[in-house]
Amino acid sequence: MRMVDLIHKKRNGGELTAAEIQTIIDGYCRGDIPDYQMSAWAMAVYFQGMTPVETANLTLAIAESGDTVDLSQIPGVKADKHSTGGVGDKTTLILGPIVAAAGIPVAKMSGRGLGHTGGTIDKLESIAGFRTELTQEQFFRQVNEIGLAVIGQSGNLTPADKKLYALRDVTATVESIPLIASSVMSKKIAAGADAIVLDVKTGSGAFMKTVEQSEELAHAMVEIGTEVGRNTAAVISDMDQPLGFAVGNALEVAEAVATLQGKGPEDLTELCVELAAHMTVLAGKAADIYEAKKLVRELLASGAALAKFRQFVAAQGGDDAFVDDLRRLPQAEYVFAAKSPAEGYIGAIDAEELGIAAMMLGAGRATKDDTIDHAVGIVLNLKVGDRVAAGEALARVHAAAPESEPAVRQALERLLGAFTITPEPPKLRPLVLSVVTAAGTERTAAQ
Amino acid sequence: MRMVDLIHKKRNGGELTAAEIQTIIDGYCRGDIPDYQMSAWAMAVYFQGMTPVETANLTLAIAESGDTVDLSQIPGVKADKHSTGGVGDKTTLILGPIVAAAGIPVAKMSGRGLGHTGGTIDKLESIAGFRTELTQEQFFRQVNEIGLAVIGQSGNLTPADKKLYALRDVTATVESIPLIASSVMSKKIAAGADAIVLDVKTGSGAFMKTVEQSEELAHAMVEIGTEVGRNTAAVISDMDQPLGFAVGNALEVAEAVATLQGKGPEDLTELCVELAAHMTVLAGKAADIYEAKKLVRELLASGAALAKFRQFVAAQGGDDAFVDDLRRLPQAEYVFAAKSPAEGYIGAIDAEELGIAAMMLGAGRATKDDTIDHAVGIVLNLKVGDRVAAGEALARVHAAAPESEPAVRQALERLLGAFTITPEPPKLRPLVLSVVTAAGTERTAAQ
Repeated sequence: MRMVDLIHKKRNGGELTAAEIQTIIDGYCRGDIPDYQMSAWAMAVYFQGMTPVETANLTLAIAESGDTVDLSQIPGVKADKHSTGGVGDKTTLILGPIVAAAGIPVAKMSGRGLGHTGGTIDKLESIAGFRTELTQEQFFRQVNEIGLAVIGQSGNLTPADKKLYALRDVTATVESIPLIASSVMSKKIAAGADAIVLDVKTGSGAFMKTVEQSEELAHAMVEIGTEVGRNTAAVISDMDQPLGFAVGNALEVAEAVATLQGKGPEDLTELCVELAAHMTVLAGKAADIYEAKKLVRELLASGAALAKFRQFVAAQGGDDAFVDDLRRLPQAEYVFAAKSPAEGYIGAIDAEELGIAAMMLGAGRATKDDTIDHAVGIVLNLKVGDRVAAGEALARVHAAAPESEPAVRQALERLLGAFTITPEPPKLRPLVLSVVTAAGTERTAAQ
Repeated sequence: MRMVDLIHKKRNGGELTAAEIQTIIDGYCRGDIPDYQMSAWAMAVYFQGMTPVETANLTLAIAESGDTVDLSQIPGVKADKHSTGGVGDKTTLILGPIVAAAGIPVAKMSGRGLGHTGGTIDKLESIAGFRTELTQEQFFRQVNEIGLAVIGQSGNLTPADKKLYALRDVTATVESIPLIASSVMSKKIAAGADAIVLDVKTGSGAFMKTVEQSEELAHAMVEIGTEVGRNTAAVISDMDQPLGFAVGNALEVAEAVATLQGKGPEDLTELCVELAAHMTVLAGKAADIYEAKKLVRELLASGAALAKFRQFVAAQGGDDAFVDDLRRLPQAEYVFAAKSPAEGYIGAIDAEELGIAAMMLGAGRATKDDTIDHAVGIVLNLKVGDRVAAGEALARVHAAAPESEPAVRQALERLLGAFTITPEPPKLRPLVLSVVTAAGTERTAAQ
């Protein structure tokens, strides 16, 4: 089986066998198949697509290209969640405690990663004393004792994905549903979860711009999960603006705590309830989504989820006293308002631009070696659809230097540029747009 | 202009500008654009195609990637011919003298190349004393004096084509009309000819299997020629069997001489008349194809073409006495018959298999460092449509070792495998199937 023949087969619309896909991924990892053949193959996949079986085989080959996590020492159906990436997305901090409080073990490995704001690990490290490096034994013991642990990714998970993604990024082969779906799912499968809920973002701030594209991706991922024996569901949610109000590490932790206390932003709460409920159903702790949502809301209202969060923080060495006094989190030295240049309605908030502004303030990493300032970031004052007067605060900027500092001024300009002010109120759409499960796709009634 | 954006543009069906194409070819030659981006781009071209203007710009960029030959020191319209590759194709040896005898200068650079039998240069080197390495001054002087010179390719012509073709070969991106057309035409344009006639082979032994595909390729090449100001025409000819009877260097030279003497194989003669006539028309030495064919036939019948051939051989140091006594050409030590295992009709002769058999005898090069045995090869006894008795000779093998030698026996087996013997006579089709000029496509009436 020569790689040129496998490229040829895919180029002509053929279906690659499991053995052929294994040959491609193994050969690419070993360096026997050069980048120039792999990129031609990826472009052929872009045009010809892959069948569900091919996509599942590709996912498994990538998942098995490196270390895999064996969670069998933890009894029960382990649940995990993945988001296709959003700005101000702190759902993991909220979902983990809710789901663990429902009796579903959550053994989460999280990346640090590049991005506008840090990953979940960076956010948690805003908490004084919080340790994200546990031994595997400590990790498993903690999940078995309290139902929840989050650690930084260690080991060599899915090296094929890292290598292939870097190649796709420079060869215009990113936008392929089977390649995106297998990339996401291979990581989740290697991380060992039994039940996987996917939060697929859609809209201007997301990779998938339309609900249709997002549903197609969600469908491909759910099909992979089903094919490889993992219960999988996907929620398509709006990313035409950031989720919640806070963008920045400690600021997002504070907002997560508020949400666990039942006083968080409406959109963030709604999405967390939706995602947690699906995890609950997939893990077999509720008969249907209605029963699951009821259970999730009870866990929030009763304080059980918040108590689980405190227990989790303490177990990983963190000082959970900050929950009662959020000023104990890192505080930025300078806080000032970003004022609206005009009056009207907030027509749109470009989440990506907002994320870049936060990164410019120091909340994220542009390169792997950058250090993060946990205190800085942006807290929105208004969201899409709100009325705004000229000079009114659109957001509050939390910075390490005064507004007069050029770097801060540049971030502020970027932030203001993220807002579209319109004379007429914009058309609003629901946060949760569609749900894709093995049973099919269900759009929300409101659309 | 980043390469990833240019791949993206082509992937999405966009039309690349001349500057963008120049950036790609220059960057690739300099090594700034890596193979993995180039192969992804080639695959995108495979799927999205290129407009005639894009293809012409690509051709020019490739033609200008290295040395170009300036034939302006030779007055008149210089003509050239290119064949898309066939087994037993010795037309250049015949066409050159005919056209030169018509007063059209032919200044031909020819490759040695890999292949089943040698290139034109190898064939000419079968002639004792023949030199294919002339200085540029000698080359031009000879063309000005006698109208014809053929030299080995020197200098660094179209390095972009060499690099890109090697990449396409291992990334399943060979079969793209704009990429094939620009590869062929860039070489012809770099070689400096004003009038270009293309011999596009079609059928089982050719790269293009159907007349439709061949016409599409021919049309693309004629369009490029027209776009860049070179008079171009293409003849689509049958390659369901080898051209003429001889396959092998000296054997083909002998057949070429016979053809110039008016006693060559019918198919070879017909194709040479057709191609030479188109060269004559494009070079402005005949008003139309009918007048041109009449002129070409006269040049053959009068012996003018043969005289030109002798003059050409002598000018390049060869001993032209062999024309009167073909036994002066290198002779193989062993000659034996390849006998038909069955009776019936010759249904097909797989030209490529026959070529491989000739290469196994030593007539061609499998690798660049192989040496050629000018004497060896195959001479067909029968062609498609002929009736054959069991045990009758299908061909005569000219070998350097006896039939009992394993290597020779293997070549003989390969040779016999190239023949299909059928109980019923096969359907025959004309040799020249279609002619493509700037004015349009004309199929032969007989089809």
